[in-house]
Amino acid sequence: VTGFGPEHLPYGVFRRAGEEPRVGVRLGDGILDLAELAADGPLDEDPLLFFQPSLNAFMAAGRETWRRVREALLALTAGPDAEPAKVALDEAQLLLPFAVGDYVDFYSSLDHARNVGRIFRPDAEPLQPNWRHMPIGYHGRSGTVVVSGTPIARPCGQRLEPGDDAPVYGPSVRLDIELELGFVIGIPSEAGEPVAIDRALDHVFGVLLVNDWSARDLQAWEYRPLGPFLAKSFATSVAAWVTPLDAILDRRVEAPAQEPKLLQYLREEPWAFDLALEIELNETTIARTNARHLYWSAAQQLAHMTVNGASVRTGDLFASGTISGPRPVQRGCLLELTWNGAEPVTLADGSTRSFLEDGDEVVLRGRGGDAIALGEVRGRIEPAR
Amino acid sequence: VTGFGPEHLPYGVFRRAGEEPRVGVRLGDGILDLAELAADGPLDEDPLLFFQPSLNAFMAAGRETWRRVREALLALTAGPDAEPAKVALDEAQLLLPFAVGDYVDFYSSLDHARNVGRIFRPDAEPLQPNWRHMPIGYHGRSGTVVVSGTPIARPCGQRLEPGDDAPVYGPSVRLDIELELGFVIGIPSEAGEPVAIDRALDHVFGVLLVNDWSARDLQAWEYRPLGPFLAKSFATSVAAWVTPLDAILDRRVEAPAQEPKLLQYLREEPWAFDLALEIELNETTIARTNARHLYWSAAQQLAHMTVNGASVRTGDLFASGTISGPRPVQRGCLLELTWNGAEPVTLADGSTRSFLEDGDEVVLRGRGGDAIALGEVRGRIEPAR
Repeated sequence: VTGFGPEHLPYGVFRRAGEEPRVGVRLGDGILDLAELAADGPLDEDPLLFFQPSLNAFMAAGRETWRRVREALLALTAGPDAEPAKVALDEAQLLLPFAVGDYVDFYSSLDHARNVGRIFRPDAEPLQPNWRHMPIGYHGRSGTVVVSGTPIARPCGQRLEPGDDAPVYGPSVRLDIELELGFVIGIPSEAGEPVAIDRALDHVFGVLLVNDWSARDLQAWEYRPLGPFLAKSFATSVAAWVTPLDAILDRRVEAPAQEPKLLQYLREEPWAFDLALEIELNETTIARTNARHLYWSAAQQLAHMTVNGASVRTGDLFASGTISGPRPVQRGCLLELTWNGAEPVTLADGSTRSFLEDGDEVVLRGRGGDAIALGEVRGRIEPAR
Repeated sequence: VTGFGPEHLPYGVFRRAGEEPRVGVRLGDGILDLAELAADGPLDEDPLLFFQPSLNAFMAAGRETWRRVREALLALTAGPDAEPAKVALDEAQLLLPFAVGDYVDFYSSLDHARNVGRIFRPDAEPLQPNWRHMPIGYHGRSGTVVVSGTPIARPCGQRLEPGDDAPVYGPSVRLDIELELGFVIGIPSEAGEPVAIDRALDHVFGVLLVNDWSARDLQAWEYRPLGPFLAKSFATSVAAWVTPLDAILDRRVEAPAQEPKLLQYLREEPWAFDLALEIELNETTIARTNARHLYWSAAQQLAHMTVNGASVRTGDLFASGTISGPRPVQRGCLLELTWNGAEPVTLADGSTRSFLEDGDEVVLRGRGGDAIALGEVRGRIEPAR
């Protein structure tokens, strides 16, 4: 298994049948049981950090602890002969890796925002006047963030059919994927104290892929003037494995200049993560994009989110918003890939899709070169109940 | 002290100097220490429900436990001679009464929504086409919900000055109050299972006043297309005392019919709570309104919020949105009371206010007849840092 070697070491939470959940680290085709490694001595840490149903205690312990644990794991796994005992993946149930505090979803891809504007407001300038001045975002529902593999029931709700003046109720007929990169807060900030942009990444524990499922028909009807609500709140899927920020810092690349010039609190040398991303639908790859297409960086997002004095807590999740690039195959959601259904995508079995059908299975994948395979995000659509 | 007699018995969390937080009940000018009453016997419950930093364990215990505790407290406090030992209010620090899961803010007052539409979109129909078909709402930030008495630092952020095409950064110059009624979830719902409207109140533990502080200048610039974000996320103040739903069920009154006819999942006999509400600014009462002016009920809000399969958790908070009535004095925020600053309000000391100034102190109050004084929500504005 490539992408899960000693350069990566992503964290997660697993449970073996009849046991309590524990924190583990993915290595190759198995899991290192950190609770056991700490209890038995090779890992010189308090085992209570890892006998836990979430990463939150470990994340709250701080950067010095993260660094120590990562170095100890690198030592344990170093060398071609090192074979630490592992839990087999098929013996473990993978759980939601962290207890989510607040979940913020941004809208940080220029191509995505522009495409959505063209589709939903064809007669207007696609980009709102505020878009290039700040990372636009909103709060999502943290209580419905679920781990990869959780089935997704098609949501019901209100939609307005074209030409009607009253809504109908029923299962969403425009259920969509959103391919996003999420950032998990380890170190909280103080209430009233904005996080400076050059210190923002100090608060971030790690990254993971996010599928922000979206019911486009519900969204189009409900979103004025307070934004998306039920169109998103039924479920958000995240990977079971959180990649430590340290493992991808060398994937930072320069990004194009941001124009017009930003207000001081958002200014930095433009950068992005070079992470190749894919959407697979029923085993057909329907999109290939890259996190480097994001216009706003994670540091800008966090600086903006706290500039009004709002604090962040351990376990807070903020995600990029759909990641699209300039070319059609680089679009990170079906709304864009099919241009709101007008140009369906064709799958390997010859069938076509405008939006998701019951039974469809979506997998998001990401890679940082050979060394890093981001934890996948998998979800199958179940019929509305 | 009226409004805190045996008919009320609201719950909160308090701490005496040098001690751990405990759950208590407000009675007259003092607090009944439930942890002690349970440990010493008069209250036949597990003391661990009350040796807690939040109401969540007690709220999660369920309606049968709530009923038993309330009946035991009524027995303890019944009769003119009953004098259970109380903690003096000035010996206790009141804490945030519950750990907030998700915080949803609705927009359920017709007069408020119409006034805001007239102010922000003067050339358009004030009410969006969706407004009468569903309770419009959005997710707020749960990590910045604070208890009454917490100082509120003026938030900084971006605003667009009239005539400019680029924003400026600085302290908000249009800082506002929002007078709201909040509902706290006790009994969680299952993922994928909408809460039926006639069972919605079964999930609600209690109610409390909410001040959803709002920076109108930040809001006007940021809110398209994803809704309010930094304009609200710096702080939301809630009362220290949660009034049990049982204590105000007899305050339900009939409400006007809702037109056009609603989709089935939102249909019920229209009702509202008759609770008189006030905003006090530097000891001048600037608004007198009533929760009966709300168009959408708490049951409709909860049925809508879960119709897409989203679940609710113990500690989730959902609030009404600003409560305004048809008359000018019944408006629940300064934006409406001063018509976006055009008609300042005059305070008892002769000064005027368009929006909040540094040093201003706001108190929200509410009453259900003589028996019920909702816990106040107090906050003083501190200068931006």
